[in-house]
Amino acid sequence: MKKAIFYHAGCPVCVSAETDLLNLIPSNEVEVVHLGSEPQKVKDAEQAGVQSVPALVLANGNVLHINFGASIEDLK
Amino acid sequence: MKKAIFYHAGCPVCVSAETDLLNLIPSNEVEVVHLGSEPQKVKDAEQAGVQSVPALVLANGNVLHINFGASIEDLK
Repeated sequence: MKKAIFYHAGCPVCVSAETDLLNLIPSNEVEVVHLGSEPQKVKDAEQAGVQSVPALVLANGNVLHINFGASIEDLK
Repeated sequence: MKKAIFYHAGCPVCVSAETDLLNLIPSNEVEVVHLGSEPQKVKDAEQAGVQSVPALVLANGNVLHINFGASIEDLK
């Protein structure tokens, strides 16, 4: 099966979302791409429909853009 | 371990995102809540920090809001 690809850019929000999501998704089903470290892959991400990071491009071509809101814990 | 909770409201976008995400996340690690069918849970979702659906509330309290962009396939 084609893997999902998780695109991020190393910002704290991305790293947090990455950790959270990757805890849930078996690691053999997702590839992680750091667009800050691998800028040559920005074009791939754009072609896949990624408009912002973090985003998860699924094996079926769907793109989920992830907005990480502040958690309640952070507001206490 | 506390499960993650996936909140949605039965709109086609939610259902698509739900199917996509739930294909990746082992089903024993996530609970799915349909806020249209279970409106009494809206308060729980709000208290967890959910501002829009679909959203995934993680076991650690972080909330990932998911924006599903049109896939490239849909544009062809």
